[in-house]
Parts: sequence; C-alpha cells; structure tokens
Amino acid sequence: MNLPISSPPPEPYRYTYHVGFGDCDPAGIAYTGALVNAALRAIDRFLSDITDGRGWYAMSVQLGIGMPFVHLDVDFAIPVRGDADLEFTVTVTQLGQTSLGFQVMGWQRSENCFRLNSVNVFISRMEGKQPLPAWLRTALEPHLSK
Amino acid sequence: MNLPISSPPPEPYRYTYHVGFGDCDPAGIAYTGALVNAALRAIDRFLSDITDGRGWYAMSVQLGIGMPFVHLDVDFAIPVRGDADLEFTVTVTQLGQTSLGFQVMGWQRSENCFRLNSVNVFISRMEGKQPLPAWLRTALEPHLSK
Amino acid sequence: MNLPISSPPPEPYRYTYHVGFGDCDPAGIAYTGALVNAALRAIDRFLSDITDGRGWYAMSVQLGIGMPFVHLDVDFAIPVRGDADLEFTVTVTQLGQTSLGFQVMGWQRSENCFRLNSVNVFISRMEGKQPLPAWLRTALEPHLSK
Amino acid sequence: MNLPISSPPPEPYRYTYHVGFGDCDPAGIAYTGALVNAALRAIDRFLSDITDGRGWYAMSVQLGIGMPFVHLDVDFAIPVRGDADLEFTVTVTQLGQTSLGFQVMGWQRSENCFRLNSVNVFISRMEGKQPLPAWLRTALEPHLSK
Repeated sequence: MNLPISSPPPEPYRYTYHVGFGDCDPAGIAYTGALVNAALRAIDRFLSDITDGRGWYAMSVQLGIGMPFVHLDVDFAIPVRGDADLEFTVTVTQLGQTSLGFQVMGWQRSENCFRLNSVNVFISRMEGKQPLPAWLRTALEPHLSK
Repeated sequence: MNLPISSPPPEPYRYTYHVGFGDCDPAGIAYTGALVNAALRAIDRFLSDITDGRGWYAMSVQLGIGMPFVHLDVDFAIPVRGDADLEFTVTVTQLGQTSLGFQVMGWQRSENCFRLNSVNVFISRMEGKQPLPAWLRTALEPHLSK
Repeated sequence: MNLPISSPPPEPYRYTYHVGFGDCDPAGIAYTGALVNAALRAIDRFLSDITDGRGWYAMSVQLGIGMPFVHLDVDFAIPVRGDADLEFTVTVTQLGQTSLGFQVMGWQRSENCFRLNSVNVFISRMEGKQPLPAWLRTALEPHLSK
Repeated sequence: MNLPISSPPPEPYRYTYHVGFGDCDPAGIAYTGALVNAALRAIDRFLSDITDGRGWYAMSVQLGIGMPFVHLDVDFAIPVRGDADLEFTVTVTQLGQTSLGFQVMGWQRSENCFRLNSVNVFISRMEGKQPLPAWLRTALEPHLSK
C-alpha cells in the first residue's frame, strides 16, 4: 500500500479521538473495528459541526433523513497506539445529486496511520433516495477536496 | 452498486450473528460500525474454527503472531434489521506468501445485505512480515474461492 | 466478594455468547465494558425469545414502549477468557407494577465469572412510566426466581 | 432513585465525552452499554492523566500490572441525549492496601444523568493481588473524596 501524503494538510476539518484501553486488543494496538468506529465518529462530528447540529443524530431523530453508507474502504498503514491521541482530518471527496463521499485520515504524531473513503447516499425516510437539501450542500461545499 | 449473487452459496463457512438492540442506531437499523465489527467477528470465528482454536486470540496471546488488516472495503446493499439473524459466509479470496484476503458476506432472509473484502498480512511480533506457517495455509486452502 | 453458586442451575434461560478477539483488551482477557455489553445482549435475547419477538427492538421501533435501566450492578469473580464461549443464564428477580429486575450470570466451564443485576422501569414513549402490559408480565412470570 | 447532587462540584477531575450517533439506540438516546463504556473511558483518561501516562494501557502493556474491576454499580437518573457532550467527573472513593474505588458521574447541561461506582483490585500479572505502588497512591490521594 502506498499512502503518499506524509503530513496532514493544514486546512481540513480536524477531530481528535483519544484511543482508550478498551479500543485496544490483545496485540496491544487499536482493534481494527475500533478504528473504523472512530473514523465514523469523525464523520459524525464533522457533519454536526458544519451544520449547526444537523448531523446524523438530528437527521435521524428530528428530520427523518439520513445518509446511509453504500461503500467504505480503508487502507491501514501503521498500527495505532493506545492511550494516545488519534488526529482525524475529514474532507468531502464527492458531492453529487443524491450521493456524497468522505475521506477520513487518521494520524498519530504526524504519521498517517489509516485512510477511510466512503460513498453515502442521501435519503428521506419516507421517499428514499433524494437530492441533498441546499443547507447540507452549502455546508459541505467548502470541504470538498479539489 | 451491483451485488450480483442473489443467494448464499451452499459450501462456504457460515457464522450466524444476532443483531442486537445495542447494534442498532436511531434510524432503527444496524449501525454501519456494528456491521463492520460483526463481519470482523465472522472472520475471527472462521479462523478459530478451521485451526482448532489458533485464531486471532491464540495467535496474539499464545503464539506471538497475527494478521493485521492492510485493507478492507465494504459494499452495503440492503439495510440490516435489528433483533434478527445476520448470516455470514466467509471465504478466502487470496493466499499469498505473506498476505491473504477474506470475503465476508452478510445475509438476511437469503438476501445479501453487504459484502466485506479484506487484505491482511501475516506477521510475527518479533520479526515482522512472515510467510504463513504451513498449519495455517493448510487450514485456509480448502476455503479459497476459485 | 462472595459468589456462592458454583454451577449454573439447570432451569433458567440460557444464552451463549462467544467472546471474540475484539472483546479482549491488552491484558488478554475480556474488557469490562465488553462483558457488560454481552450481559445486556443476554437480556435482549431473553426478552425477544420469551415474547415471540417483542423484545427491546420491537418495543422501541414498533410498539413505542421500553424498559430503561435505572440501576445495574455487577460483581466480577473470575476473568473471562477470549475465543471461548461465555454461557449466560437469565432470570427475572422482581416483577412490580411498573418496574422489573433481571439477573444475568456469566459462566465459563461451569464457573461463575460474573453476575449482573438490574432494575428497569417500564415506560411508554408517550405517557412515561406505565404498568407492564399483560403479555409481558405473562411472559416474564415463569422466569421469576423464587 | 435519588441523586441529590444537582450540579457538578467544581473540583473533581473532568472529562468530556461526546455522545455519537453510534452510541444511540433505536429509542434515540444513548444505549446503556455505551454509557457504561463511556464511564470506563473516563476512568481510563483520569488514571492516565494523573499518572503521566501510566494508566490502564501502560499498566497492561509496559508494566505488567492492572486494576481489574471486582464490582461496579450504576444508577441512571435521566436519559442521555445524542450528539451532545456528556461531562464526566471522576473521584476516588476508597484507597485501601490492595483495592480502590472510583465514582464517575455523567452530566448533561448541569444535570446528573447517571453515576457509576466501582471497586477495583490492584494486581501484578505475575504475583496477583498487590499493594498499590507508591507512585499510584500518591497520584490518587488528591482525588480521594472526603
């Protein structure tokens, strides 16, 4: 695998997750499943932060909308240490009519440990696949990677 | 997304996971992160079952070896219902000198809900990347998908 | 701590959970949080099984009712090994007008590893604390420990 | 249940956990198991912070020691909202020769949502139950609740 970027770009959205004892497996490093969950948490925080709280939780509980994953892939480069910060950068990789994509990179001490890419579709609970609403598109656009 | 296989093949290793209330999110379906964790659990059980207990746990705790993930990708086709069985099939997709790959498909009522593919490397804690030991290769070979 | 019962009684509801690699922490045993989650999973399965599927999931998603925890306590006697079955027994310890209690005991190789007790209240989403409905009381009564 | 303290005391150790979408269940509130895990995470951070990094992770991976739970109990007063901060306060409730206890209180908007108490024993992997080492006792003492 080849993860060419060697230090996090200064601009993207950042979220820090502290890798806990309970995130680590008997090999003494963060468990793969815990890393995927932490990366999803980074997208969750990103969306809520850039939309004044209309992230996954409000979308689901209050707005009757959502953005289920249709795809995710992860490349792991370096094991993630426990009891240490894992810095995430989150960018938007695509912004279609009804679909969108995220890239989440996880860093420890300026080294890129892993990178998750997703494809999500935008839905309303009642009517299925939908165009993204304007407020969401507007919030995401500044984070679209060129 | 196009998941062409419409019913699970009869032969592969099978593992049943029951999707619990705690695996489900406010949208009332299994959370993406819980699905990835359940699929990893399917690989974990597969490896332990086909090796007389020398799966990830014994590899790590007793044998000083392991098979960290370098890649995983998941395609999600159908939401996974809660309080219902999620049937997994597990196959080996590649078996190289020092690397291997798994495919895990998740099914509910004979419908393929999602499919995870992984690439893992085989390591010993002391010496890094290693050729797979004979006992492991022998156990995996019958499960190699053609 | 004193856990006097030395083998599981034959009668109570039983549920088997397999402790996975991802449930274990760097000490090589099941993480405390994973054990509590597994015990909650045992209650989840118990309720669904004894009510023909009207467990926590259906209660929440279809019926607009629930039984939030107001208390739980756990006594841990023996570390729980990974890649091994953890056998649970579940009984009902109290069955009041609007509250109920569960006891979940976790066993490995006929040794009691830990014991969780809970107090839950019965609620409807619209009206708050409620008397247990007849169908639920009837389902629970045979499992009430004397 | 009666949780008489109506606002967090100013002095104890504080840790903020953000309740994510994936921590919430189909009822739209934080899942009980996720809350217990978050409270354990608060103890994990507390210990690491007050000992210059010699928390559960370093104890287990580097020092061959640990403090397994022999007891925990939790009282839940108020449901915990998703996509919102959950503020924890952590204090030491007892500090014996070989055992110790923690109290973790979870708060949202100055309301106490739940309270966890634990009893832990101090062990070395080689020799079992042990007196707490001086460096740990010294770090814990200032946090002992009167």
